[in-house]
Amino acid sequence: MLVFIGLGLYDEKDISVKGLEQLLAADEIYAEFYTSRLMGSSHEKLESFFGRQIRLLSREDVEGDPIWLEEAREKVVAFLVGGDPMVSTTHLDLRLRALDMGIETKVIHSSSIVTAASGLTGLQNYRFGRSATIPFPYVSRGRRIVSQTPYTVLKENLQRNLHTMLFLDIQNERFMTVNEGASLLMEMQDESGEKLLLGRLGIGIARAGSEDSVVKADLLSRLALYDFGGPLHILIVPASLHFMEAKALVALAGAPPETLKGDE
Amino acid sequence: MLVFIGLGLYDEKDISVKGLEQLLAADEIYAEFYTSRLMGSSHEKLESFFGRQIRLLSREDVEGDPIWLEEAREKVVAFLVGGDPMVSTTHLDLRLRALDMGIETKVIHSSSIVTAASGLTGLQNYRFGRSATIPFPYVSRGRRIVSQTPYTVLKENLQRNLHTMLFLDIQNERFMTVNEGASLLMEMQDESGEKLLLGRLGIGIARAGSEDSVVKADLLSRLALYDFGGPLHILIVPASLHFMEAKALVALAGAPPETLKGDE
Repeated sequence: MLVFIGLGLYDEKDISVKGLEQLLAADEIYAEFYTSRLMGSSHEKLESFFGRQIRLLSREDVEGDPIWLEEAREKVVAFLVGGDPMVSTTHLDLRLRALDMGIETKVIHSSSIVTAASGLTGLQNYRFGRSATIPFPYVSRGRRIVSQTPYTVLKENLQRNLHTMLFLDIQNERFMTVNEGASLLMEMQDESGEKLLLGRLGIGIARAGSEDSVVKADLLSRLALYDFGGPLHILIVPASLHFMEAKALVALAGAPPETLKGDE
Repeated sequence: MLVFIGLGLYDEKDISVKGLEQLLAADEIYAEFYTSRLMGSSHEKLESFFGRQIRLLSREDVEGDPIWLEEAREKVVAFLVGGDPMVSTTHLDLRLRALDMGIETKVIHSSSIVTAASGLTGLQNYRFGRSATIPFPYVSRGRRIVSQTPYTVLKENLQRNLHTMLFLDIQNERFMTVNEGASLLMEMQDESGEKLLLGRLGIGIARAGSEDSVVKADLLSRLALYDFGGPLHILIVPASLHFMEAKALVALAGAPPETLKGDE
């Protein structure tokens, strides 16, 4: 049996009691942290808190030919991931391969940035449209390439009056900040020749689920300079705000008072 | 201090370790279960599992003039809710009133049907559009009224090729089933004179987060007859499926094999 266990948002204590029980009952424990980081913990902290050996899997271990998966034929194997399992296609693919091998699977859910973001900002969950990831720019044939995809998704959502959650790229040990994300959005706007983001609000969230999480709403142009502290960051661009959402952003995220004079 | 603690999806063991610690450290513990039910537990089970007295709050207690909130000025008051807190406007409103009173607040996140639904079906989370609730029909001036709102939301999402999560109404102790939800969608289609749902797949989920959860995908017209067992149910109507999603629905939800011959 292969048991996918979500570790939740931030550190080793975000696992559910159910998840903890299943983890302690497992014969072998594996974890992968390349699809989602548990910023408030580490491999050592997890092993010490759970009192069990946890074997870390690389992308190749998970997506290649997972020999460790063979163990799940005879034993109960726990597979730990950050957030809620299955939000990543990688986990789904692994689950389907396990089922193909005749291995029973189980999923223990946990907290996820997807719902926490609405809780932390006061934005209503049902008003979020499709989300996107802002990737780091890269250089191709001597030219700087900034993907326009996040901007296109944002534009489509705004046309339908929906909020947009923008995940920020992680490359090796480099974590994109809200500041970089906001600046890149401005650069995408320049490329488009539009004025979509003029005077528009953005909300940065840092270290969701931790005791020192930061939530700050301001004009996107000003967010580029705000100090959010360490990773992980995410960026939200809200559509027009319901009155209660505007009130929440002022109270919870220090949005400028004029936010209350919204268009709804 | 007022600490919102999410109890997660299904029973008393879906709370996080962090949430449990905060609950045990609180001076007073309150809970409300009218915005979201913890189907696998009860007031008694929760009190016995946590070893603490939990005072149940009615809608009036929470939304009216909450005298119990005054206690949070001097003491640490835990406020328990099903799922992840703040998905409901009710909790946000309470949090804002507490802040207005000068009371510090904190949110401990937990698992939510919003992300669990994608985990259980294999549908990618970012492909969900706006969600809606299918309300029970009612009779006005001798005429049966079926709200068209869920149908309108579904139609808009399908036009943008996005999946739709449909929450099913709860009235007192009556829980709408997937069967009723699917039938009501058909009735809304009749009213519209369109053929939007012809040959379209639906996915019913029952008791998410429990050991005996059921996930079944079939034509919406056939779902009306499938036995999902006890509550809580939710209904998903997917847009066109990516290949991996189709594969997942066949493997995880027994979707008809022709699902694999999708349009993407």
